[in-house]
Amino acid sequence: MDKFDEKMMRKAISLSRISIKKGGGPFGAIIVKDGRIVASGHNMVTLKNDPTAHAEVSVIRRAAKKLNTFDLSGCTIYSSCEPCPMCLSAIYWAHIDKIYYANTKADAKDIGFDDSFIYDQLALPVEKRSIPVVQLLRNEAISAFEIWQQKPDKTKY
Amino acid sequence: MDKFDEKMMRKAISLSRISIKKGGGPFGAIIVKDGRIVASGHNMVTLKNDPTAHAEVSVIRRAAKKLNTFDLSGCTIYSSCEPCPMCLSAIYWAHIDKIYYANTKADAKDIGFDDSFIYDQLALPVEKRSIPVVQLLRNEAISAFEIWQQKPDKTKY
Repeated sequence: MDKFDEKMMRKAISLSRISIKKGGGPFGAIIVKDGRIVASGHNMVTLKNDPTAHAEVSVIRRAAKKLNTFDLSGCTIYSSCEPCPMCLSAIYWAHIDKIYYANTKADAKDIGFDDSFIYDQLALPVEKRSIPVVQLLRNEAISAFEIWQQKPDKTKY
Repeated sequence: MDKFDEKMMRKAISLSRISIKKGGGPFGAIIVKDGRIVASGHNMVTLKNDPTAHAEVSVIRRAAKKLNTFDLSGCTIYSSCEPCPMCLSAIYWAHIDKIYYANTKADAKDIGFDDSFIYDQLALPVEKRSIPVVQLLRNEAISAFEIWQQKPDKTKY
């Protein structure tokens, strides 16, 4: 950790405080590339009626739009809290290089957020999870995957 | 599984095929409440330059907007493929009641998607994951959580 990383994290923390004032959850995040801030974001779940609008997902969406690519390789994310499984997975899908966080998922649990619960759920076998999961019609759905595989001009991600 | 569920899944599968034609990934999903389709969606990662725009995340966003709430309790999601960790977590955050899927994460892996890899990453201890994770400034960030905890008029989700 150096002075630059601390400065970036302080910006993310500042956004987490601003978010509360705006009526969002207490989470902020920024994305940095080549020493410059590409995008910043905060939690907007209740403000936008979007359960996916966590700080990290919001800032990933903004950074990708700004850089005009779905591939954020070369970027670093600074989040005021340890990413939940949704956000961590989004970070993987976006190919972000490195994650800095401040508060932990245990801290988030202590103030009433489900991060830890969802981490636990993902680690359980499907049949033991709290949301029932049922498979059907794989024999019909697989044709789309076959079409995809044979498509010569597909964009991979 | 009954005729209604099959009919809904066939709509999700149809969307997965339409998605390929539009230039998206081979994934479709719909959300149903009280026997009616609330929203439908397909993968738009490459079309929208949004790494989070999987079929399930897209349809959750649309359904939440349409129902004007971040809480999709009472809803069922039909996805043409087993949700990746990002989408599964989004389903938990949205409080969706039940998940139907067709193709498996192994099927997705076979055609080049990272679902299985990300499931494996989440199950690893932080220090063994492929993306480096560093904690800093928790002592400064925790103040936002304290403000949140003391806020009398907060909207929980």
